Amino acid sequence: MTRIAILGPGLLGGSIALAARRAGEFHVGVWARRTEAVEEVKKLGLADLVSTDLRAVVAGAQLVILCVPVGAMPAIAGQIGDAVEPGAIVTDVGSVKAAVVAELSEIFRAAGSAHFVGSHPMAGSEQTGMHAARVDLFDGATCILTPDENTNALALGRLHQFWEELGCQVVETSPLDHDRIVALISHFPHLLAATLVNMVGEKNAAAFDFSGPGFRDATRVAGGPPAMWAEILRSNHTAVRAAAEAMIEKLREITTLLDHEASMTEFLTQAKSQRDLLRLPKTPHA
Amino acid sequence: MTRIAILGPGLLGGSIALAARRAGEFHVGVWARRTEAVEEVKKLGLADLVSTDLRAVVAGAQLVILCVPVGAMPAIAGQIGDAVEPGAIVTDVGSVKAAVVAELSEIFRAAGSAHFVGSHPMAGSEQTGMHAARVDLFDGATCILTPDENTNALALGRLHQFWEELGCQVVETSPLDHDRIVALISHFPHLLAATLVNMVGEKNAAAFDFSGPGFRDATRVAGGPPAMWAEILRSNHTAVRAAAEAMIEKLREITTLLDHEASMTEFLTQAKSQRDLLRLPKTPHA
Repeated sequence: MTRIAILGPGLLGGSIALAARRAGEFHVGVWARRTEAVEEVKKLGLADLVSTDLRAVVAGAQLVILCVPVGAMPAIAGQIGDAVEPGAIVTDVGSVKAAVVAELSEIFRAAGSAHFVGSHPMAGSEQTGMHAARVDLFDGATCILTPDENTNALALGRLHQFWEELGCQVVETSPLDHDRIVALISHFPHLLAATLVNMVGEKNAAAFDFSGPGFRDATRVAGGPPAMWAEILRSNHTAVRAAAEAMIEKLREITTLLDHEASMTEFLTQAKSQRDLLRLPKTPHA
Repeated sequence: MTRIAILGPGLLGGSIALAARRAGEFHVGVWARRTEAVEEVKKLGLADLVSTDLRAVVAGAQLVILCVPVGAMPAIAGQIGDAVEPGAIVTDVGSVKAAVVAELSEIFRAAGSAHFVGSHPMAGSEQTGMHAARVDLFDGATCILTPDENTNALALGRLHQFWEELGCQVVETSPLDHDRIVALISHFPHLLAATLVNMVGEKNAAAFDFSGPGFRDATRVAGGPPAMWAEILRSNHTAVRAAAEAMIEKLREITTLLDHEASMTEFLTQAKSQRDLLRLPKTPHA
């Protein structure tokens, strides 16, 4: 029985707890900062052990998963560095990786204890909090692991297997490539959706009343939690800025072609053919 | 029993036929250009009468609905101007209105026959063609009617009722306001989604493999038929260009705030609060 320690029972932490209990091979410990959250975790039956005592939850765990905001991770890591079992694996679920991986790897290396490997399970929703947690949140979701040149290969392999057991499709890339990629397909598109909503609101807020399913889907991500996304955008600002500049450039170009039906058809065909290739949601984990 | 004539059995024409037959009070005639399409309409049981003879389908109809591309409408209208019953209502389902309404109103006024009123049922999908037609396509969909200063009030009222019988939520606005509004919530967002896909494809096509449900939803509309959308964008280029310029301006502004977490949180909160107010899909037509 593998002991896992989930630090922070939000949407992701709660869903990991549910999926791990479904997998059946895990003893699940959960740390929550507030006693009210501890009571909620108990009420929802998410864990075998739940406490506000960080070191008590971490002790004896073979896998520790930080499910707190990116900005809170270094402080938490500092508190548990010498409480984690030697040889244990520590990971996180943050949406940005280069800075986090560098900082957390160093903390655990200095403590001489656990192996840190970054994870980014690409699952979530506009909802937040443990009440939005779902046992199937990771079924078919992509999980990106971000090893660097110092990553322990055995720890990486075990973590890979863990996310697969939770239902994920696991891929690996470097922390820096991760940040550039998610800027393109997640962080910048989030900013773009929010900007579209605010632009329409400023030009003619009455237009919202005419919107249909296309606008609703195109702007769905703009319903996500603002403070969390502002932190993500700041943490990955270099790559997001590069994406925004490329987008502005491309919008300028294409706006000159609005009158050129043939060129526009070609542009839209290129987009459609790439869009049509996006992988369909994978079959849920059996 | 009201006789309706549907000119063009694509996704919209086919779905109107199905929804009208469900409503039960209509004799449905369908015109198709190609004999193969006529055979398909027969096979799918979409109509009471189907023919490649435009004037034969239009004759005796109290409501004629042009379901052909915007660019093909004036020629079709010219052919049926003197075949339409005096007092009949003619409408269309085009996504742009100012030019179409001006041109078609004039054709039918000159022929001294029918009353033209523009319609834009905001329903559709990435699919096209009569095989994608659905009886419930209009259930809860917004349908915008675009009367101008010469519109016959009785004809407008009857058309309003017709779309409601098909399941639509009907709203009315002027042709010009219509074009500005749909540029903001449909035409420009379509171009934006296509531009996002092409930007990502140019920066790093491998990033598509990492994309999740957020990117899939944000770019869904980019899967629509390119030639049809290129025509729509050209037809409404003034309003689409204005939206694109406002978007570029807003993107430039917000990109300077990537490092300012508090301002960015405020920006994202503003977007979220407007996005959260978008009306939910209406209850399907009972």
